[in-house]
Amino acid sequence: MKPEPGKLGPPTAPAAIVLLSGGLDSATAAAWAGSKGFRLSALSIDYGQRHRVELDRARATAAALGISDHLVLPVDLAAFGGSALVDDAIPVPKERSSDEIGRGIPTTYVPARNTVFLGLALAMAETRAAEALVIGVNAVDYSGYPDCRPEFVEAFARLARLATRAGVEGRPLDVLAPLATLSKAEIIALGLSLGVDYALTSSCYDPAPDGFPCGGCDSCRLRAAGFAAVGIPDPLLSARP
Amino acid sequence: MKPEPGKLGPPTAPAAIVLLSGGLDSATAAAWAGSKGFRLSALSIDYGQRHRVELDRARATAAALGISDHLVLPVDLAAFGGSALVDDAIPVPKERSSDEIGRGIPTTYVPARNTVFLGLALAMAETRAAEALVIGVNAVDYSGYPDCRPEFVEAFARLARLATRAGVEGRPLDVLAPLATLSKAEIIALGLSLGVDYALTSSCYDPAPDGFPCGGCDSCRLRAAGFAAVGIPDPLLSARP
Repeated sequence: MKPEPGKLGPPTAPAAIVLLSGGLDSATAAAWAGSKGFRLSALSIDYGQRHRVELDRARATAAALGISDHLVLPVDLAAFGGSALVDDAIPVPKERSSDEIGRGIPTTYVPARNTVFLGLALAMAETRAAEALVIGVNAVDYSGYPDCRPEFVEAFARLARLATRAGVEGRPLDVLAPLATLSKAEIIALGLSLGVDYALTSSCYDPAPDGFPCGGCDSCRLRAAGFAAVGIPDPLLSARP
Repeated sequence: MKPEPGKLGPPTAPAAIVLLSGGLDSATAAAWAGSKGFRLSALSIDYGQRHRVELDRARATAAALGISDHLVLPVDLAAFGGSALVDDAIPVPKERSSDEIGRGIPTTYVPARNTVFLGLALAMAETRAAEALVIGVNAVDYSGYPDCRPEFVEAFARLARLATRAGVEGRPLDVLAPLATLSKAEIIALGLSLGVDYALTSSCYDPAPDGFPCGGCDSCRLRAAGFAAVGIPDPLLSARP
């Protein structure tokens, strides 16, 4: 069940920019923002990630949510290196236990990724007179990245108001992270209640050439545990031909 | 007179990332950081600016300062639009008086530009274990951009420590804006004392096809007033064949 078109907001609704990675969390955050009446534009970044299949999933999710203003912007973070997600020479950790995941910062951390992504979303927000940036970060069932924590999001919101024409002119501008304190199971339950089609999303850090998830990386394991806790099969896994 | 190679710091010196636009201010900020003993890497962004000649000036300035680790990264801010600097359909304001310049935010403001640039410099800093980002922003003789003010720089420094592995691990990480409270004349005097070759720099928002400055945009006028106050001719203007 897709959200009603009206749920994505009429032309007079406040505008918001959602960062859409193609993953489960950002799809849920986008559906949440639509349900709150925001008129959504979406931004995805082609940053040299090894799981580039997620960009096609982002396009599919944007289409399913009725978001027509969707930019996919190339920004070559692989030029800096320093992460398993942009450097094939650094292996993606596999088969880590739930105790290990989220403890310390793993090699899949991409330096300053969410700072760069929110900065680009902020640029887009200024040109759309948007009142909010929406990001699907979460610091409960997550990979331990520093730029997923609520204190990071709050600091960026403060920065955003100092950095922009909107802020100087006193117009509203906020950063919304609706999943910040939810467990993965709660995120999935929220998305299902909003009609998110998780078969369109991809969470794997190291997918097969056809895009099928590896099943062993931190992100696959967090996703699997979430669907198990909700008690339904992951529709992505049953979607393989 | 170029700074001594030693001034750019031996391999054991603390590392810093300098944002090098190709303009007068960032060249001065880079020379200042070198004189303080930082081992410098430089980052320039090819963002769709109409004054793209500044990227060649950034390369020349990096070479003159002995900075071999210089990345020029394409990030298409023109995809968002909303600025005279990335949209040829929006004219660059010309012949504004010193009273008009810096009052209000002009059409040359590029939405969230310094947030994006500092975000990318932060990514580079993480991969170089750098202790500082260096940016040549100034809020005295400037174009009135919100993301050039000291409160913006301070907010970004706070964000940077929350966003990164360096911050989580308690390593030093700061944003240095050595020109923040200097007049344009003071900036030029500082650069001259450090041996900066301003003939290599370009400040114009709307240069001729051969790169020669227009003379009428806010940036040209601020630069001309600065050299006039110092009492020397702008070497860039005498450099035209």
